[in-house]
Amino acid sequence: MNVEREKRLSAEAAAGLVEDGMIVGLGTGSTVGYLLPALARRRLSISCVATSPRTKRAALELGLDVRPFDIVDHLDMTIDGADQIAPDGWLVKGGGGAHTREKIVAAAASRFVVIGDSRKPVEVIRAPIPLELLEFGLSATLRRLGPALVREAPKSPDGGILADYHGDVGNPARLSERLSATPGVVGHGLFPPELVTEVLVGHGDSVERRTLRP
Amino acid sequence: MNVEREKRLSAEAAAGLVEDGMIVGLGTGSTVGYLLPALARRRLSISCVATSPRTKRAALELGLDVRPFDIVDHLDMTIDGADQIAPDGWLVKGGGGAHTREKIVAAAASRFVVIGDSRKPVEVIRAPIPLELLEFGLSATLRRLGPALVREAPKSPDGGILADYHGDVGNPARLSERLSATPGVVGHGLFPPELVTEVLVGHGDSVERRTLRP
Repeated sequence: MNVEREKRLSAEAAAGLVEDGMIVGLGTGSTVGYLLPALARRRLSISCVATSPRTKRAALELGLDVRPFDIVDHLDMTIDGADQIAPDGWLVKGGGGAHTREKIVAAAASRFVVIGDSRKPVEVIRAPIPLELLEFGLSATLRRLGPALVREAPKSPDGGILADYHGDVGNPARLSERLSATPGVVGHGLFPPELVTEVLVGHGDSVERRTLRP
Repeated sequence: MNVEREKRLSAEAAAGLVEDGMIVGLGTGSTVGYLLPALARRRLSISCVATSPRTKRAALELGLDVRPFDIVDHLDMTIDGADQIAPDGWLVKGGGGAHTREKIVAAAASRFVVIGDSRKPVEVIRAPIPLELLEFGLSATLRRLGPALVREAPKSPDGGILADYHGDVGNPARLSERLSATPGVVGHGLFPPELVTEVLVGHGDSVERRTLRP
């Protein structure tokens, strides 16, 4: 198993889905690191929105057209990696801390294409689940969440504190609802299947493509 | 109906519930404007946490001991006003834009006491529902929310954009869940009955006290 090769293959397959004229959301992470040059090589006429300063910098260096994501209210396609991909389409994202922006960009797109290597599909979603929390009332919020730990990391670009939930996951839908409803939680890394349209996973020399909805 | 008198009476009744040694969360708004002097007059030995810079300033001027809300992880009692109080205990808060911090402070307390005048109880919760949104992806978030308008107001102390949802409310629990789950929503002004312990509403010359849970 060559993980880097699998990442590159899945990223290249996703880049092949992009069409001229599209507005494309770009995720964050090591697999997206292969997506950006693959997209740039296609020399399409597209505009992009980036989920992190890191992706924005890398995309601009490759000559991609990156727009600020304030006036744009709809994207054609978002492509991003994931830390865990469950059989029913639930994802965990945000090991890199960009999950809040990544979820906004995923939700804004008609198609959300998830890419990754063969280690990313899991039978069951497990902790840690990335969190972004307000600094105000942080101790009280952590207490309410249950087992959660603040990361030794800079704040998010939106000023939030990055943390991880380390408790039981159980039913991802129920945990997602609880995390979302907890006052002080800005965002969390559980992504529901409703957001996902396609999953492209590298397996050895090939890419397994799964369509969750048309 | 003397609204100012009703506000004062409900605020004074709430101040009467505070006991020596408590850590007390202080809300924001015109009814809290009556609470602060009533609390100060009692000369209790209490510590306070404020939900807004405005409340913090006013409390400090009255000689109350206001602590930063970062290390404190639990409050004994929070007292705050509400814009709408439904028969089943659902609240709408945040006309003043402080709802995100208000919900954190309400959730951190063993007892959450809601105060207000006789115009605040409503038969049915109605829009507008206050929102706090991330600036990143704002247009896309507004599009996803449905009818929502950004306020002509400064950002929240946490950097969020203040807005209001103007669509149908229907079942408050379902709307609350949808708003919480919408990527880019930092907080919203629907407060569930589970947070509320007591409601003190001024009616003419008296205060009607309702206990939702012990």
